[in-house]
Amino acid sequence: MSELRKDPVTSRWVVISTERRKRPTDFRLEPVTLAPDGACPFCEGHEHMTPRELLAHRNGSAPDGPGWNLRVVPNQFPVLRVEGTLDRRGEGLFDKMNGIGAHEVIIESPKHDETLATLDDGAVEQVLGAFRERVLDLKQDRRFRYIIIFKNHGAAAGASLDHSHSQLIALPIVPREVRDEVDGAKAHHAAKERCVFCDIVRQEVEERRRVIAENADMVALAPYAPRFPFETWILPKRHQAMFEDAPRHEYASLARLLGDILRRMNRALRVPPYNLLIHSAPLAEPAGEYFHWHVEIIPTLTKMAGFEWATGFYLNPTSPEEAAQVLRDARA
Amino acid sequence: MSELRKDPVTSRWVVISTERRKRPTDFRLEPVTLAPDGACPFCEGHEHMTPRELLAHRNGSAPDGPGWNLRVVPNQFPVLRVEGTLDRRGEGLFDKMNGIGAHEVIIESPKHDETLATLDDGAVEQVLGAFRERVLDLKQDRRFRYIIIFKNHGAAAGASLDHSHSQLIALPIVPREVRDEVDGAKAHHAAKERCVFCDIVRQEVEERRRVIAENADMVALAPYAPRFPFETWILPKRHQAMFEDAPRHEYASLARLLGDILRRMNRALRVPPYNLLIHSAPLAEPAGEYFHWHVEIIPTLTKMAGFEWATGFYLNPTSPEEAAQVLRDARA
Repeated sequence: MSELRKDPVTSRWVVISTERRKRPTDFRLEPVTLAPDGACPFCEGHEHMTPRELLAHRNGSAPDGPGWNLRVVPNQFPVLRVEGTLDRRGEGLFDKMNGIGAHEVIIESPKHDETLATLDDGAVEQVLGAFRERVLDLKQDRRFRYIIIFKNHGAAAGASLDHSHSQLIALPIVPREVRDEVDGAKAHHAAKERCVFCDIVRQEVEERRRVIAENADMVALAPYAPRFPFETWILPKRHQAMFEDAPRHEYASLARLLGDILRRMNRALRVPPYNLLIHSAPLAEPAGEYFHWHVEIIPTLTKMAGFEWATGFYLNPTSPEEAAQVLRDARA
Repeated sequence: MSELRKDPVTSRWVVISTERRKRPTDFRLEPVTLAPDGACPFCEGHEHMTPRELLAHRNGSAPDGPGWNLRVVPNQFPVLRVEGTLDRRGEGLFDKMNGIGAHEVIIESPKHDETLATLDDGAVEQVLGAFRERVLDLKQDRRFRYIIIFKNHGAAAGASLDHSHSQLIALPIVPREVRDEVDGAKAHHAAKERCVFCDIVRQEVEERRRVIAENADMVALAPYAPRFPFETWILPKRHQAMFEDAPRHEYASLARLLGDILRRMNRALRVPPYNLLIHSAPLAEPAGEYFHWHVEIIPTLTKMAGFEWATGFYLNPTSPEEAAQVLRDARA
């Protein structure tokens, strides 16, 4: 019989379907292939095709030219713009403000055919460090309430360019899914004086059925009530509300575990498209005691039915216990 | 400059993008074509290919044979099953229950090539009447907390069969998007002692910029903060929490306006795939004063980026004022 399971953070119920049960080979897997692209604006030597860099890791080379391992540039077609004032206003019943924000691209490698799964751990750690550096800079702007860091890998996951990159959007609002997670964590803390994510880590590490891999600082697990097949979370074992406040050795541990998980997915799910998100506490909210930053990775294996996003009620054909087992076994 | 707009019901912020502004011809429109299918289980004469009918509109013909205008059957591959007990239980921190529910299919016409846009108003009214009849039957089952009625039209909108049909899922929980809408409406009512949807209808009908069409009982409009281009809501002008409690003449008015809107979309957006949902108050919650049933129609014009569903933060490249204008002009 199928099960209805409740996510302990957001109280979202999902169906874990046994009737429509799917193992990796039951999905129509569509491997991400990186075609060579002479016109790729993110390749080394094409720096003139992007806006001027905000940050780069260079060995003494001049800005906006070759000779780098990582670059951060403003998005050429930004969703929101930094210039201007928010100008909050009403229209009768309704509220609006100007589209103020920042939209940046983190180019993770000078090479077109590298990905977070093929880069060495040090290079992945540099990517995480660049996220941190940009967040620390942007959070000085008091107009911003939240900074989303995410990655769309592969066209099916929404990537418009193949070359490995992540994106960062600073927003003058807290997006609703984050709001729900923060509110859920706050309610748990109010009731129990404990962090719900710490509770999850403790129970999962003890029980082990949904743990995929771990190291001294971080644990990767299939969440109890996943919306999507093979949805994977990576959490720091130590409580910390904000990604950018993590100590340096945790970035090194995350880089190692993240590369490991992505390689496991590549093996088990034939190089799937995926979305990756960093969930961190909202800026300027006293969430230090109850929020706990983490990474969510969701391979694109199914097409979301209209009613799923429209109702927030998800049907997942692969149990997290099975997904965790498959990824545990997909070790190199 | 782009705008951030807040939905007054759910408090969800969306970006209405001017930088990436899109008119109908800018979308990659993929018309839904209904290919003849000799093996379609929903066609007249193929009644043996579905489970036994729960309801049918027949002129004296025998059940589960030809001679009908509309049939309701259990879904052959149900997401949830009626048999069994909920058996709510915990696993440490986590909560679960058995996958109890009902999953039914409303076959809207015996003919393979009819749609809600081509059926006459009387036939569409019969479809709405069948929704009502099934809801009234299912809500007697006290295990259910919510009944979702929805339609996926076209493969890109998640339909697995071409033949025009809707689906109904009775759930032992209230899905999260509905929960947010109900909670938002409740908070508005607590603050103002008014229904937020009544407020929206009043302001929009007076202002007219986002009104697409209306009749005596119903109004179709582009919502102020739409998640998707050409998202359209149809609301009864008179306050009523639950779809199934509407008076008969409102179903007739809805049928007329729904057909009209779908034909406008077919003209303006080249027969788009779409999702349609009925939002009604949860069963057995005293939402009578603050909730207001309505229909949401969302043509499938864009691919949702991973970060949109993952953050609940939507980027809409078409303003509702422009969408309403296009659909107003697309009158037959």
